[in-house]
Amino acid sequence: IQSKLPGIGTTIFSVMSKLAAEHNAINLSQGFPDYPCDPKLTELVSKAMKDGFNQYAPMPGNPFLKETIAEKVEKLYRVKYNPDTEITITAGGTQAIFTALAAIINPGDEVIIFEPAYDCYAPTIKLLGGQVKTYELAPPNYDIDWDMVKKLFTSNTRMIILNSPQNPTGSILSEEDMKLLIKLVSGTDILILSDEVYEHLVYDEQKHTSVMLFPELKKRSFVIASFGKLLHATGWKLGYCLAPEPLTKEFRKVHQFNVFSVNSPMQQAIADYIKEPGNYSGIATFFEKKRDFFRGLLAESRFELLPCKGSYFQCASYSKISDEKDTDFSIRLIKEFGVATIPVSAFYQKATDHKIIRFCFAKENLTLESAAKKLKNV
Amino acid sequence: IQSKLPGIGTTIFSVMSKLAAEHNAINLSQGFPDYPCDPKLTELVSKAMKDGFNQYAPMPGNPFLKETIAEKVEKLYRVKYNPDTEITITAGGTQAIFTALAAIINPGDEVIIFEPAYDCYAPTIKLLGGQVKTYELAPPNYDIDWDMVKKLFTSNTRMIILNSPQNPTGSILSEEDMKLLIKLVSGTDILILSDEVYEHLVYDEQKHTSVMLFPELKKRSFVIASFGKLLHATGWKLGYCLAPEPLTKEFRKVHQFNVFSVNSPMQQAIADYIKEPGNYSGIATFFEKKRDFFRGLLAESRFELLPCKGSYFQCASYSKISDEKDTDFSIRLIKEFGVATIPVSAFYQKATDHKIIRFCFAKENLTLESAAKKLKNV
Ligand SMILES: CSCCC(=O)C(=O)O
Ligand SMILES: CSCCC(=O)C(=O)O
Repeated sequence: IQSKLPGIGTTIFSVMSKLAAEHNAINLSQGFPDYPCDPKLTELVSKAMKDGFNQYAPMPGNPFLKETIAEKVEKLYRVKYNPDTEITITAGGTQAIFTALAAIINPGDEVIIFEPAYDCYAPTIKLLGGQVKTYELAPPNYDIDWDMVKKLFTSNTRMIILNSPQNPTGSILSEEDMKLLIKLVSGTDILILSDEVYEHLVYDEQKHTSVMLFPELKKRSFVIASFGKLLHATGWKLGYCLAPEPLTKEFRKVHQFNVFSVNSPMQQAIADYIKEPGNYSGIATFFEKKRDFFRGLLAESRFELLPCKGSYFQCASYSKISDEKDTDFSIRLIKEFGVATIPVSAFYQKATDHKIIRFCFAKENLTLESAAKKLKNV
Repeated sequence: IQSKLPGIGTTIFSVMSKLAAEHNAINLSQGFPDYPCDPKLTELVSKAMKDGFNQYAPMPGNPFLKETIAEKVEKLYRVKYNPDTEITITAGGTQAIFTALAAIINPGDEVIIFEPAYDCYAPTIKLLGGQVKTYELAPPNYDIDWDMVKKLFTSNTRMIILNSPQNPTGSILSEEDMKLLIKLVSGTDILILSDEVYEHLVYDEQKHTSVMLFPELKKRSFVIASFGKLLHATGWKLGYCLAPEPLTKEFRKVHQFNVFSVNSPMQQAIADYIKEPGNYSGIATFFEKKRDFFRGLLAESRFELLPCKGSYFQCASYSKISDEKDTDFSIRLIKEFGVATIPVSAFYQKATDHKIIRFCFAKENLTLESAAKKLKNV
C-alpha cells in the first residue's frame, strides 16, 4: 500500500510523552495541564448525562453552547457571529483546522504557513493535494516581515494560516501585523485560517489581537478556538470554528461527513460553565504567574530564555550547553536529566535546528520546581 | 467561494429531526434511542473525570480501552487484533470512515458502494477526488449479485465499502456473500471499508458475518465499529477502527492530524463498562423484541413492511397509500400525522424513488405504540 503521507511518522507530542512515561521523566513536552480541571465543570458533565444529553447533538452543535459562545465572543471582542449560521462545534481545535482545510483546499492550491508551526498544518495541506508555502520566522522574536510574505503570493495562493499566540514560540501578532496583512489580502480572494486556541493566554497587559477585530479579515477567516485550553481539560476534545456564513456553509458540509456532531453531554456542561464568565476570567493571570515563576526558576540555569508573550509554552536556547541537534538533546534531557521537552525543529518541515527546545509551563508549581531543579544540573 | 461539494445540503438526519421538533412529531427518523443509557455507564464517566482522565488521551486511544476491545473482538469472532498497532479509537463511526477514506483515496481512485447507502460515503469519496461507482440494490431483499459487482471493477478500483447490517435496509451479508466477495478481490490490491456499526444488532438467531472472519478479507479491511450504538449513547461519539498494521499505520497518520485523540474520560469509562460482557450481551434480543413489537403494531396499518434482519431500522413501502415522492410523503407524515421518518431516496445519489421510508425502532415501547397509532390513520 502506497502512503499518501510517506514522510510522516508519529507526532512529536506522542513520541515525547511516551518517552517521558518510559523514563519516568517530568513531562513538560506535550501541552496539557497536570492539575485537575474545576470540579464544578465535571459535575456539570455528570448533570448533563443525568439530564439525558446522551444522544446525537445537532450537527453544528448544541444551540445553547453556540449562543453562549456568541455572547462570550461579543463581550470579549465586540464582534458578532450568528450562532445558527456562523458557529460550529468541533471535536477539538485540530479537527476544526482539518475540516476548514478539507472544505477549501483543492489540489494545486497554495497555503502559506509560518514556521516553526504547529505540526498538523503542513501534512493536512499535503494530504488534500495542496502546496505548502513556508515563511520561516527567525528567533528570538519570530517577527513577520509582511513584504516577504507578499513574495510568496502566486495566483494559486488560496489561504494563509495564522497562529497567535503562537505554538511553539509564544509570539503574538500585533495590530500593526494585522494592518499590514489587510493591505496584502484586500482585493484578493485569499482566505485565512486563524488558529487562536491560545486566545486567552496573552500576557504583560497585552490584549489578544484576533483577526475578527478587522472586518476585512473577519469576512475571509475561519477562526479556530479550543475549550481544552480554556478549561484545563485538553482530553475532552471540544473546540469550535467561527466563520462568516458562506465559509461556515462549506465548513459544515465537511464537518457533517467527517464527524457529524460532537460529544453531547460535554457540550451542554461547557455551555453551563462558560455562561458564567467568572469561571474563566482569571486564566491569563493564572498562566502569566506560571510563566514568570518558571522563568524565574530557570534564570539560574544555563538555558537562555526566549521571549514568551502568550500561549503556555516557554522556548529556550541551549546553545551554551551543547551543540547536539535539538532532538538528540531533548532525548538526552529525558534520559539523563529526567525532563521531557519538545525540540523546536519538530515544528519545521525541512531540517532546521536553532538549538531551541520548548517547555510547557501549564503545570503545578511543584512540578515546575522539580523540573527546574533538574534543569539547573544541565 | 467555489464549493468542493456543490450538490450537498444538510444531511437528511438533521433536516428530519429538526422538522420533527418543529412540528412536535414523534421522531422515528434519525437513528438514536429515546430512552436513557445505563446509569452505571454514566457513573463510570463521572468516576473517570474524578480520577483525572481529563487531559489528552494517547493519540491511538486509551490503552486499556484498546485492550478491552481486542478481548471483546477475540471472544465474539475468535480473531486477533493487536491493540498497539491495529486498533484506533475515533470520534465515532463517521469519523473512522472519513479517516480511512482520507488515508487511502487519491484523486481518480474508484470506490464501489451499494445503494441505498449511509449518506456520508459518497460525498467523502468525492471530497477526496475519488470516483463513486454505485451498485443499486433492489427492494425488498436488497441482495447483492456479485457477478454484477465484478462488472464495476476497473484498473482504478481502490476500495469497496460494505455495510452489514445495512443502514437503511436492515439487510445483512451472509457467509455466501463473503465467499463470493473473496473470489472477486483475491489476487487484487482492492481494499475494503466494512462499516459494521450495527454488528451487535442481528436477529432471528443469525450471527453477524464480519469481514474479519475471513483472512483474505481481514488483511485488506478497515472494520468500523461504534460505541454509540452498542451503549445506547449515540451522542458520545466514540467508535473505533480495526485494521491490519500497514492499514492502521496509514489510518493513524490521518487520524493524528484530523482529531489527534478523542474524549478521554469517556474512553476510560467505556473500557470499564465493556470489560464486563454482561453489560451489553442482551442487546440483540432487546432490539429484536422492539423490532417484533413495532412490526406487530404496523401489521394493522396500510404500510407494507420490508424484511429487517438487523440494524435498528425498519423499512416500509407506502405504495398502497400514496404515489407521492418519498420526501414529500415523509414531510406530510410529519405535518399531518405527527410521525417523522427518513425517506429512503435520501440514501441514493441519483433521484431514485421506491416509495419506501425508514423507521427507527430504537425507542421506548410507548413511543412505538403512539407512533403506530398515528401511522394506522395514514
Ligand atoms: C494535540 S497534542 C499537542 C498539544 C499541543 O498543543 C502541543 O503540545 O503543542
Ligand atoms: C449521524 S446521524 C444519523 C444517525 C444514523 O445512523 C441514521 O439515522 O442513519
